[in-house]
Amino acid sequence: MQIYKAPLRDMRFVLYELFDSRTVAALPGGEELTPELIDSILEEAAKFTEKVLLPLNASGDEEGCHYENGVVRTPKGFKDAYVAFREGGWTAMACDPAYGGQGLPEIVNKLVEEMICATNLSFGLYPGLSHGAYLALRHHASDELKQKFLPKLVDGTWSGTMCLTEAHCGTDLGLLRTKAVPQADGSYRVTGSKIFISAGEHDLTENIVHLVLARLPDAPAGVKGISLFVVPKFLPTPDGGVGARNGVLCTAIEHKMGIKASATCQLSFEGATGWMVGRPNKGLQAMFTMMNSERLSVGLQGLGLAEVAYQSAVAYAKERLQGRSLNGAKRPDLPADPIIVHPDVRRMLMTMRAYAEGCRALAGWVAQALDIAERATDPSAKETAEDFTALMTPIVKALFTELGFEATNLCMQAYGGHGYIRDHGIEQLVRDARIAMIYEGTNGIQALDLVGRKLPAHAGRYLRRFFHPVSEFIASRKANPALAALVEPLSKAFGALQLATVHIAQSAERDREEAGAAAAEYLRLFGLVALGYMWARSAEVAAEKLPAADGDAGFYQSKLITARFFMERILPQSFALLTSIKSGKASMMALPEAAF
Amino acid sequence: MQIYKAPLRDMRFVLYELFDSRTVAALPGGEELTPELIDSILEEAAKFTEKVLLPLNASGDEEGCHYENGVVRTPKGFKDAYVAFREGGWTAMACDPAYGGQGLPEIVNKLVEEMICATNLSFGLYPGLSHGAYLALRHHASDELKQKFLPKLVDGTWSGTMCLTEAHCGTDLGLLRTKAVPQADGSYRVTGSKIFISAGEHDLTENIVHLVLARLPDAPAGVKGISLFVVPKFLPTPDGGVGARNGVLCTAIEHKMGIKASATCQLSFEGATGWMVGRPNKGLQAMFTMMNSERLSVGLQGLGLAEVAYQSAVAYAKERLQGRSLNGAKRPDLPADPIIVHPDVRRMLMTMRAYAEGCRALAGWVAQALDIAERATDPSAKETAEDFTALMTPIVKALFTELGFEATNLCMQAYGGHGYIRDHGIEQLVRDARIAMIYEGTNGIQALDLVGRKLPAHAGRYLRRFFHPVSEFIASRKANPALAALVEPLSKAFGALQLATVHIAQSAERDREEAGAAAAEYLRLFGLVALGYMWARSAEVAAEKLPAADGDAGFYQSKLITARFFMERILPQSFALLTSIKSGKASMMALPEAAF
Repeated sequence: MQIYKAPLRDMRFVLYELFDSRTVAALPGGEELTPELIDSILEEAAKFTEKVLLPLNASGDEEGCHYENGVVRTPKGFKDAYVAFREGGWTAMACDPAYGGQGLPEIVNKLVEEMICATNLSFGLYPGLSHGAYLALRHHASDELKQKFLPKLVDGTWSGTMCLTEAHCGTDLGLLRTKAVPQADGSYRVTGSKIFISAGEHDLTENIVHLVLARLPDAPAGVKGISLFVVPKFLPTPDGGVGARNGVLCTAIEHKMGIKASATCQLSFEGATGWMVGRPNKGLQAMFTMMNSERLSVGLQGLGLAEVAYQSAVAYAKERLQGRSLNGAKRPDLPADPIIVHPDVRRMLMTMRAYAEGCRALAGWVAQALDIAERATDPSAKETAEDFTALMTPIVKALFTELGFEATNLCMQAYGGHGYIRDHGIEQLVRDARIAMIYEGTNGIQALDLVGRKLPAHAGRYLRRFFHPVSEFIASRKANPALAALVEPLSKAFGALQLATVHIAQSAERDREEAGAAAAEYLRLFGLVALGYMWARSAEVAAEKLPAADGDAGFYQSKLITARFFMERILPQSFALLTSIKSGKASMMALPEAAF
Repeated sequence: MQIYKAPLRDMRFVLYELFDSRTVAALPGGEELTPELIDSILEEAAKFTEKVLLPLNASGDEEGCHYENGVVRTPKGFKDAYVAFREGGWTAMACDPAYGGQGLPEIVNKLVEEMICATNLSFGLYPGLSHGAYLALRHHASDELKQKFLPKLVDGTWSGTMCLTEAHCGTDLGLLRTKAVPQADGSYRVTGSKIFISAGEHDLTENIVHLVLARLPDAPAGVKGISLFVVPKFLPTPDGGVGARNGVLCTAIEHKMGIKASATCQLSFEGATGWMVGRPNKGLQAMFTMMNSERLSVGLQGLGLAEVAYQSAVAYAKERLQGRSLNGAKRPDLPADPIIVHPDVRRMLMTMRAYAEGCRALAGWVAQALDIAERATDPSAKETAEDFTALMTPIVKALFTELGFEATNLCMQAYGGHGYIRDHGIEQLVRDARIAMIYEGTNGIQALDLVGRKLPAHAGRYLRRFFHPVSEFIASRKANPALAALVEPLSKAFGALQLATVHIAQSAERDREEAGAAAAEYLRLFGLVALGYMWARSAEVAAEKLPAADGDAGFYQSKLITARFFMERILPQSFALLTSIKSGKASMMALPEAAF
């Protein structure tokens, strides 16, 4: 069974112990952000996701979305759940109070997102896309457009989409063909076909606000000729209602491996009325505001699925009786021991646990930086935080989704044949997790973003936002004997990351393909070191608190054990990755195309 | 699209260049085994699998099997394909001529199996299970039972199953409850419920021969009280026809993640008539004859899927236009370059290729040993070969299925969103590949078999069947400058394997859980070294043949490049695995059960 209780204790650890929620509370707009408020939000979110979203996850997968004559019906229960979600204020949580939002920071928002993704990824995509559309409009649209669309996106009566992909172009948006022709009244007529549009059509909201990339008639070729338009399904009336149907039609939905309750639409824009968002030919930059937020959210999908996979596997491992402990029966009263006694089952459970808690800590660090970047008044603090989130976005997206997929597969492996059949809902987790490595820029594209853009940016300035705190941590803790068993492996892995970075910087200067050849392994190496750093810091906190922990002693002891597991059994991959990176592009690129 | 052309050139490389098919031809029964005969069989198999099985793969997945009132209908086209398969003699290929078989060796049979798995895994399970049943009966049944069942299994008019799993026990067969009560006429009445029975009921054959594990009334508890019975769906008539319906009923089929055209059945034995195979309470050993063969076949499923994944990804990577080469446009005549120009796409393709060709070579080595074990008259050669296949069985099963699953996922990653939707058939490959890591003993069980049984067997004698040839190869090639770049990394990885072996042997003496904690990583390390050895030997052959290769030069050059890719970018994982193994069980086992 899909088992999930929101990991509130660990979330509080990240919020109040590993980091300090007062950092964000001290920023403008954070005045009311007390631990009591945060806790009550998380507890409400836990209730909603456990009781409303989780029970719809397997049934939504089983039923899927239905398409008929341009209309999409979501699975049974989704509409009611969405109404409850909207009425509970969840769509407004991380939005600007100027448009009806609650103005809560990302450090809280991202934890709620994790719970949503863990319990019902398909459901989460609908409000998730809306929030992306909200962000793009809020940062780039005119005041008039903001007034027209933002309050509706914030209160969730309307939803949003990102219309980028066309049949012949996904990664390479420079090839896109959708056209936008200016009209006398300042609007545009948008014509073209888009595919893979999540939440492109559905029955959850009264209107859908599409953000569409298209070309002006005189636009230059390639990515420098792309503009962004807002194209609603129904034209808004002056009083904020829903008016005439616009010329955008859902022509089909995709049949997919997973996320079956999420409507993935083909949309046909047929002279649809839209308005430009931001400046002509600068649409891609505007869309990237939205994409970066979406990329972090996709990373959280991996984290959420790792958590539900972990909990589901633990429940089964404690209950399923099979074989005896290698060191003698642990439960002679039962016909066999529960499989949690077996080292190989432990290996899988500990791996999932180390992934989920490590990723949660790293997500907390990045979310705090997002809040500082958004809210800080000190330009230097702001720049540091912006640099850091820019650097970490591709890492969070790609690493978390890879580990999330691994975790769902480990969960299935713990279930054995019972995980492969549909009955327990475990195979759904694997199918759902798989998309996260692909959408919002494949993980290969994230890796290229890291080595091609983020590494060289401002002569390595982004990179230093990560390297400096890690170096300082290692240097200042080396002498601490209690931490030595954790800091030593971190230090070695960090050394490998530094060597890999130098290697790529030097070799890419000669040949840009060298960076491309190293990219995927470099991102993973970077991500593992980042998790290692989180685990070392978590262990430090746990070691400090343990002596006076009383009822919480088990929690801190588990942190210390899991930290050690991560350092001993996962982080060593770093050296293999460094060796692989250093071998360069030759063997990867040598085979003539015809020989494949 | 699922793209597949049987890799006949590479198969011939394994058969005639890397190994020598004359080794097997020189054994009793191999007289007619000329390269001409082998080639013609492989060419016929290629035609059949490409033209008959591949076109039914996606449609079979889409339609699935249908269950109604105890009857199972396979998807459209399967029955005709099975008739053609049977009439083509494919069910008889690797069987004993005494029962109508063609007596072909495993080195040929396994290559045909690879083609079947690559093109239609679901289909392949039906004759695959029959062959397992054939093997168990041939080795353990009385002459009377052999005469009754083997000719029908060999000519394919009847099919077979393995009925092991019950709802409460899969891995731990000691818990099984199915009963067999002896009757006055020497038969038994079998009663109990089995689950996860592949090919347990279907419409492809006129009869189904179930091999069932059950307990005699006075049987001791646990695995020492299990006997094996043959229980046909219809009782055979004295003239070899199909008589009365036996008391075995299919009560349901499973709805699964993949292999949807394979009927996975729940069977209810209700006082069904059966006959004992082999001796009382020795059923598990008899079943293992069949299971070992099945485990190697499951490994080939991973290999077959890696190959079809590779070919499908290559076709897409050459055709899909997206972006430009990092070093400048390669196809300025097109709106974008085909994605095969990108290093990250190359990384994925080369990885799949290195897996598929490496596994094929290793499968060839093991298949040759199977034939020697089966046919050799020299007891020493026979023992060596038996030891080697016993050692390699868990490695082939677990490693190939892991790499096969990785390869199908890499294929999907190369396709991006187009791989996640059902249209291209790529996501089916991922779903189908996933089961192979679970059935016929999960990969965790394979790893335990390796460290717990195979490693210590006869004071390491099995192990030496692998270690000695590898040491000798490395020692004798170290001075060869042409091979140094390949032998050096192999030598290092082999060193890591030796250290890991010593570590496990020593630590397991103190504590058996230490072996369990190391098992999964040790199996992978062993498997990677075995592939590295195959790649080094393949490269040696290629380097020797290249100067006079003429039209084949491209083939040998590709071998050399892919060998280097494997050594540089995959084999380095060995060191991470060794580090992980050496860390021992402590962090894996320390967490109290309640803390999970």
